[in-house]
Amino acid sequence: MVFRTYMDQALAEAEAASARGEVPVGAVLVSPAGEVVARAGNRTRELFDPTAHAEVLVIRAACEALGSERLPGYDLYVTLEPCPMCATVISAARIARLYYGASDPKSGGVAQGPRIFSHSQCHHVPEVYDGLSAAPAEALLKDFFAARR
Amino acid sequence: MVFRTYMDQALAEAEAASARGEVPVGAVLVSPAGEVVARAGNRTRELFDPTAHAEVLVIRAACEALGSERLPGYDLYVTLEPCPMCATVISAARIARLYYGASDPKSGGVAQGPRIFSHSQCHHVPEVYDGLSAAPAEALLKDFFAARR
Repeated sequence: MVFRTYMDQALAEAEAASARGEVPVGAVLVSPAGEVVARAGNRTRELFDPTAHAEVLVIRAACEALGSERLPGYDLYVTLEPCPMCATVISAARIARLYYGASDPKSGGVAQGPRIFSHSQCHHVPEVYDGLSAAPAEALLKDFFAARR
Repeated sequence: MVFRTYMDQALAEAEAASARGEVPVGAVLVSPAGEVVARAGNRTRELFDPTAHAEVLVIRAACEALGSERLPGYDLYVTLEPCPMCATVISAARIARLYYGASDPKSGGVAQGPRIFSHSQCHHVPEVYDGLSAAPAEALLKDFFAARR
């Protein structure tokens, strides 16, 4: 299935992030035509930038390339449930569909905690599909944090 | 009072943003020693970047200059209640104190809506002081949107 291919690319980005010593989360942004327009893993440590989550990096890259603050019709694939920052950016950029892997009880902002998409202050709500390739996404995170303990 | 001087600088940044056609919000970041280390207004339109809110711009600039993802002991002054994205970044960067002006019933994420700092998924909660120079901050926003209608 096509969505599986996109999530596999996001997982590859998460693996590459892990190898760089970054929290292993990866994201892929797909245009309305089905083309992958940006892929990234976390780079907060490398860039000294607390906003450099995978989701923010792909959205910023695609917006810059397109010359637009908004990406209507674009789909985002990410290996972990977005945090509240990323969920808010996903909404602000008018992403059409959000596909994510593992849930994140510790820092998630979609299905728990602030539940960003559930308030009237959220002016665009994407379609959300969770649990895709959740097992390998979670395994990457567990291995990463286990190795640091 | 000193905090008034910082907020005046944030208001000046909001005015400059308005003159550039950006939503008039301004922010100033102050080091533990009381030095202004970054000031900015919104630049989402100019940069084609939905994350380029004033708060994100000053935090990213200070983190880059300092070579750190975190800014413990730093204070942020912003003319408008931060949105959920900015509130999450403020927490991630470990900002000590948040001073803001006008409240934002439409898009705010601190005192309403997702109330970012009130969930266990928020790992650092800054001290929050609201309502500082709220009247001029709100007037700038009202004038900006009235001129566009």
